[in-house]
Amino acid sequence: MSNLQAIIGAIEPIHSEMVNQANDHLNQLTKPQGSLGKLEDIARQVAGITGEVKPLFDKKAVIVMAGDHGVCEEGISAFPAEVTPQMVLNFLHGGAAVNVLARHAGADVVCVDMGVNADLEHPNLVSCKVRKGSRNMAREAALTLEETVQAIEAGVQIVDDLAEKGYRLFATGEMGIGNTTASAAILCALAGVDAEISVGRGTGIDDAKMLHKQSVVNKALDVNGLRPAKDNAADTSSGDYALEVLSKVGGLEIAGLVGVILGAAKNRCPVVVDGYISSAAALVASRLAPLSASYMLASHLSQEQGHAKMLETVGLTAMLQMDMRLGEGTGAVLVFNLIEAAGKIMREMATFESAGVSRE
Amino acid sequence: MSNLQAIIGAIEPIHSEMVNQANDHLNQLTKPQGSLGKLEDIARQVAGITGEVKPLFDKKAVIVMAGDHGVCEEGISAFPAEVTPQMVLNFLHGGAAVNVLARHAGADVVCVDMGVNADLEHPNLVSCKVRKGSRNMAREAALTLEETVQAIEAGVQIVDDLAEKGYRLFATGEMGIGNTTASAAILCALAGVDAEISVGRGTGIDDAKMLHKQSVVNKALDVNGLRPAKDNAADTSSGDYALEVLSKVGGLEIAGLVGVILGAAKNRCPVVVDGYISSAAALVASRLAPLSASYMLASHLSQEQGHAKMLETVGLTAMLQMDMRLGEGTGAVLVFNLIEAAGKIMREMATFESAGVSRE
Repeated sequence: MSNLQAIIGAIEPIHSEMVNQANDHLNQLTKPQGSLGKLEDIARQVAGITGEVKPLFDKKAVIVMAGDHGVCEEGISAFPAEVTPQMVLNFLHGGAAVNVLARHAGADVVCVDMGVNADLEHPNLVSCKVRKGSRNMAREAALTLEETVQAIEAGVQIVDDLAEKGYRLFATGEMGIGNTTASAAILCALAGVDAEISVGRGTGIDDAKMLHKQSVVNKALDVNGLRPAKDNAADTSSGDYALEVLSKVGGLEIAGLVGVILGAAKNRCPVVVDGYISSAAALVASRLAPLSASYMLASHLSQEQGHAKMLETVGLTAMLQMDMRLGEGTGAVLVFNLIEAAGKIMREMATFESAGVSRE
Repeated sequence: MSNLQAIIGAIEPIHSEMVNQANDHLNQLTKPQGSLGKLEDIARQVAGITGEVKPLFDKKAVIVMAGDHGVCEEGISAFPAEVTPQMVLNFLHGGAAVNVLARHAGADVVCVDMGVNADLEHPNLVSCKVRKGSRNMAREAALTLEETVQAIEAGVQIVDDLAEKGYRLFATGEMGIGNTTASAAILCALAGVDAEISVGRGTGIDDAKMLHKQSVVNKALDVNGLRPAKDNAADTSSGDYALEVLSKVGGLEIAGLVGVILGAAKNRCPVVVDGYISSAAALVASRLAPLSASYMLASHLSQEQGHAKMLETVGLTAMLQMDMRLGEGTGAVLVFNLIEAAGKIMREMATFESAGVSRE
């Protein structure tokens, strides 16, 4: 059994008994049943994941993975590829949006070089570079299967190491000029949707460039033999196919995030999924290891047009509608606050009995 | 000029120059323009409200107003009316959901008796009781015009007093068995929608009771001469008509919250609007003083079915989609975290120049 298969095999279902216990407690609290909506969903899910009805999350991390994309040669982004390493340094110096929002949430930023096309060194950088950027998927497979598995396993290892240090709550984040193009191709291949649905404006391209981006995605799917997915739904839902898609049209930071999600599930930790690219990783993870989906929480509905379809395909529902489209994990870290709010509801609210409030 | 007219006259437009300055700063930060979505909207709006590009909100309060509703005689709620005073005591003892979430947000709960049908005393209770509950709107006007204005002015005074003590950020909250029925009637009268749209399940009634609740709302509108609003759109958008509607089918805590919103606008403070009932108060405030709408931030989209229409009518867009339907200010206090996140984005993010990141 390969290492990746062993990781997938180590993921267990969440504790249904703890979900029930959390639900019983929620129904004692001074509020109409279910009236706290998704805060109650979070409380139940987190109880099932951690095995504790009132878990505390002292140490939290957003894992921001960076990688470059050969498909940038095709001119699909508003920003030049050199921005990937520049932004990695910005993460390491604490000046990016995700740093600000992570500090606000009391979370640490773990910045990982999965495949940036530059030589980067910094004491706080976790270097897992598999190669200097993926290949141009519009001409060939972006990654080999070996490179892909290496990146996934690196993501798992990072979570294993953090869990060892006491981190119990994770968020996914990413940086990689060109990675909405890769994510769009993944959505086409795994959900059988057209590029017209999956391709959005990324960091802010105009209509003409968006049409071009669609054609590049279609070309990548053709070149890599990934069409037509729609006519082939049975075969396309397997874990092997998801791995093939990830390697052919994915990217190193996306593969690394697949590992982060599998690693969180393996360690029985909740993992908050950020926007479009992170959700592409979640989609692949859910195909590789269907049980991993129970460990995921969606965060926000991105402005990237394919995101709603991506989340729906994974089976997730967003909590925030902030019209954000930045990535980095910025939407996901905002949800840490909601998870902690749900925890405090469980720990601090009065019951009907203790407060002397009449029931319906 | 009456006191209320003077209050309305004291509300000024937000500072458009500060909105522009905030926007200029946002466009220097290391992110694609506009990619932080509503966090950027918040930053601009709050700059316009406060006159500061990087405001700090040390003292924050959620003002939870309670009142009873004579219309409960008609049997429109899942809970008995005695729950209103019981929950007020729960707020005062710190055990309700809004207490937990306010503590989580570093905010204070200010609990106000606007018209609870019980004698309540507690050192932390702000007593502004206008009368012991409103009258049954299905049989007569819920309030006189004088009572309504008294309740509004009390709300303004509370914000004036808190602003004097250094509070600069407010949220609205409420408790009052029967108040989704009053809010539904307000929406019908002011937005010209049918009771089939405006009436929802409140704290959790079944289909039969919801049909009954619709008929009670229709009866209240008929008895009070507030139909058909749809055919009469020009007259129904005036402040005088909004005041008439508020008195005839509103309630004391709703009127008090109208005052809270006007008071926040008068004091140039942002006010976060909670769910359906708070949004009914926001709708009335926006008709009484159209400039007050610029000081409001929506929070969540409630599960109460008329809420989307209510927010749309005021011109607000929700940030959270949590399927909550509790009221108390629980959704609004969750948004304090987002407002502070927006503030930190303004204060802490690196610029393209400082971080050496290339622009598009």
